[in-house]
Amino acid sequence: MNALLIYSGGMDSTTLLYQYQKEIQLAVSFHYGSKHNDREIVYAEQNCKDFGIEHITIRLDFMNQYFRSDLLQTGGAIPEGHYADENMKQTIVPFRNGIMLSIAVGLAESRELDTVLLGNHFGDHAIYPDCRRSFIDAFAEAAHAGTVKGISVVSPYCDLTKREIALIGKSIHVNFANTYSCYNGREKHCGKCGTCIERKEALEGFDPTEYEA
Amino acid sequence: MNALLIYSGGMDSTTLLYQYQKEIQLAVSFHYGSKHNDREIVYAEQNCKDFGIEHITIRLDFMNQYFRSDLLQTGGAIPEGHYADENMKQTIVPFRNGIMLSIAVGLAESRELDTVLLGNHFGDHAIYPDCRRSFIDAFAEAAHAGTVKGISVVSPYCDLTKREIALIGKSIHVNFANTYSCYNGREKHCGKCGTCIERKEALEGFDPTEYEA
Repeated sequence: MNALLIYSGGMDSTTLLYQYQKEIQLAVSFHYGSKHNDREIVYAEQNCKDFGIEHITIRLDFMNQYFRSDLLQTGGAIPEGHYADENMKQTIVPFRNGIMLSIAVGLAESRELDTVLLGNHFGDHAIYPDCRRSFIDAFAEAAHAGTVKGISVVSPYCDLTKREIALIGKSIHVNFANTYSCYNGREKHCGKCGTCIERKEALEGFDPTEYEA
Repeated sequence: MNALLIYSGGMDSTTLLYQYQKEIQLAVSFHYGSKHNDREIVYAEQNCKDFGIEHITIRLDFMNQYFRSDLLQTGGAIPEGHYADENMKQTIVPFRNGIMLSIAVGLAESRELDTVLLGNHFGDHAIYPDCRRSFIDAFAEAAHAGTVKGISVVSPYCDLTKREIALIGKSIHVNFANTYSCYNGREKHCGKCGTCIERKEALEGFDPTEYEA
């Protein structure tokens, strides 16, 4: 496998980076104008540098400009509460995974790589339609049919919970201190938004994060 | 149907614009750094203005920067010859339709539209994998599964030849003089590249185009 990793700098895709470091030829972060992109991409860059893996950031400014989502800088306040709560739907960025995957597939074909890795997981499924197995499977078929070499889309954590990913990460010594999750994008993790609550639950017992609250 | 049209300014998507003008709420052109984007998008803008349809252009500069294709400004010379010839493969922009469709699907969901229209056709199938029915069908399933409202992807010309599209266009009085096809992107159509040859064949008998050759 010669893979391109879609790499946010969060704990799931960082665990992928550790787990597949020998197969990953290129890691790509997307700056789509979320409130937390600037924070998380710093970790993505640094972790790739530590592993000697090429890393690029692709700016998708049109999403912040034209898309409607409270996750974006142009959107409203980030809701507090549990990740699976109804009000977290305000943080959906429409078809974000479709957009990141498509660009990654085209770039993989340009670079003569054969696989795109994405770190979506089971905990995302309740709220985010483009994290579900039904989307991933259909998109993987589209990527295979729509490229000359038949690029594969692989989502190793699609059926795992975030806790299960954290336990994999712990077992392979992922440094979770060098990952960022908070949707608010301030220096410290807020500890109150959906992703912070999910992060706390996943890392319980070995959480190196310093939270505001 | 409340539709977003992916609109290059070429003869196929312009025929779609005429045919679905009452359903189209937004037309989107993508400037991905091809040699001919600047020429064709002028027509896209003008034709939308004439119909009173909102038009936006989204720049995808990363494609010209990172992707490998002779269609791009950063690529080599455009090959001459027939559209279906082997050497036209150099003009593939990897997964371009996947990328344009994904962004269009996300934007449609943000604007509360229900459908994305794409003007790919049967003549593209030989060379471009992301124009084939197998890709379109899988992608349409991914778009439906990956959005909250279940956005539809509709490709009315997927099984038609370019000649058949041109005849539809003629019957509904499409002004083909206000469309642009040439991959070389000079002021006049070159008449020798694959798309020019295909355009000539499609418009035979009613071609308003002034060719260089």
